[in-house]
Amino acid sequence: MKSFRKELWFNLPQRRGFVNITPKVEACLAESGVREGLVLVNAMHITASVFINDDEIGLHQDFDLWLEKLAPHKPVSGYRHNVGEDNADGHMKRQIMGREAVVAITGGKLDFGPWEQIFYGEFDGKRKKRVLVKIIGE
Amino acid sequence: MKSFRKELWFNLPQRRGFVNITPKVEACLAESGVREGLVLVNAMHITASVFINDDEIGLHQDFDLWLEKLAPHKPVSGYRHNVGEDNADGHMKRQIMGREAVVAITGGKLDFGPWEQIFYGEFDGKRKKRVLVKIIGE
Amino acid sequence: MKSFRKELWFNLPQRRGFVNITPKVEACLAESGVREGLVLVNAMHITASVFINDDEIGLHQDFDLWLEKLAPHKPVSGYRHNVGEDNADGHMKRQIMGREAVVAITGGKLDFGPWEQIFYGEFDGKRKKRVLVKIIGE
Repeated sequence: MKSFRKELWFNLPQRRGFVNITPKVEACLAESGVREGLVLVNAMHITASVFINDDEIGLHQDFDLWLEKLAPHKPVSGYRHNVGEDNADGHMKRQIMGREAVVAITGGKLDFGPWEQIFYGEFDGKRKKRVLVKIIGE
Repeated sequence: MKSFRKELWFNLPQRRGFVNITPKVEACLAESGVREGLVLVNAMHITASVFINDDEIGLHQDFDLWLEKLAPHKPVSGYRHNVGEDNADGHMKRQIMGREAVVAITGGKLDFGPWEQIFYGEFDGKRKKRVLVKIIGE
Repeated sequence: MKSFRKELWFNLPQRRGFVNITPKVEACLAESGVREGLVLVNAMHITASVFINDDEIGLHQDFDLWLEKLAPHKPVSGYRHNVGEDNADGHMKRQIMGREAVVAITGGKLDFGPWEQIFYGEFDGKRKKRVLVKIIGE
């Protein structure tokens, strides 16, 4: 069994945003040499997500408005977590969008449907944060 | 390490629906010959889900009403994604229900609690769509 | 390839609650002897979750209020699932918080960011329920 590990770093200039990380995960897979197996891609921080969906700018705006409706940032004082912090909403947005994606590796490629793309979802940006790519297989 | 891959195809006659795919995943597992390992079951499309919950018709009706409340289909014009499309709500419903399930394989069986069943969740049906079953182990 | 399996048992005195199970998962990992691989941690029951987030009591209170807002327990009669049951809301809360976490194992340790902790989330307690820990790797 082979294993491979790499961290991807992000520092988004705004509080919230989505970044397509599919090419970076594909580069990890090529570097790993794994042909059959699984890749785990997970946020290493708890106000961020890794998820798979469509790379379409209108949809990303819809996601942002929708998450803000389900778990609004303001009023910051509405959350007990926000004592010296203001990111409680980010912890909730991350639960809806998810921490991780597990993707099949077949024939040395990400085994994806036609529109699947991997995203980093940031809900408390303006700081350095990481995603872990872990690959196991043969 | 053994690996196994199969696609399951669906074409639901309605926009939304839930299908118990546990027997199909069990058939894949038997075909794979894997006794210890992991099975990844994921929607290959981004307005569909694979999730594990109860096979109870009342609950599925509750899920449908609840998802429609959290991410309503109408008004279609309320979503920026819906330019030539009408499925933005399906992308959101899929985030709540999830893209994938990872299930342990122990002694050649899905290692499940008493009520766990695997479902395909459709949120933009009336077309052919796929689920991927990927098994790794020994 | 090595594999390891253990069940963790819970019996929470209240309907809802969160338990940090990271030390128990770490003990499983030490017992497994796996140095490189993946650990799957999943609720074996369908009104419970395993998720990764912050071990902060204010946040857990926020989560509880937020989940109760998105999928309220009462009125119990508002759910079709609740015929002889009263836990439909628990099935929904579990979808938002998720069934499982998959964590990378690197150098014999859980490969975590600075604040990641694994939680058992109970949404229909006062009974014995289980979490499965499945480890594969080398």
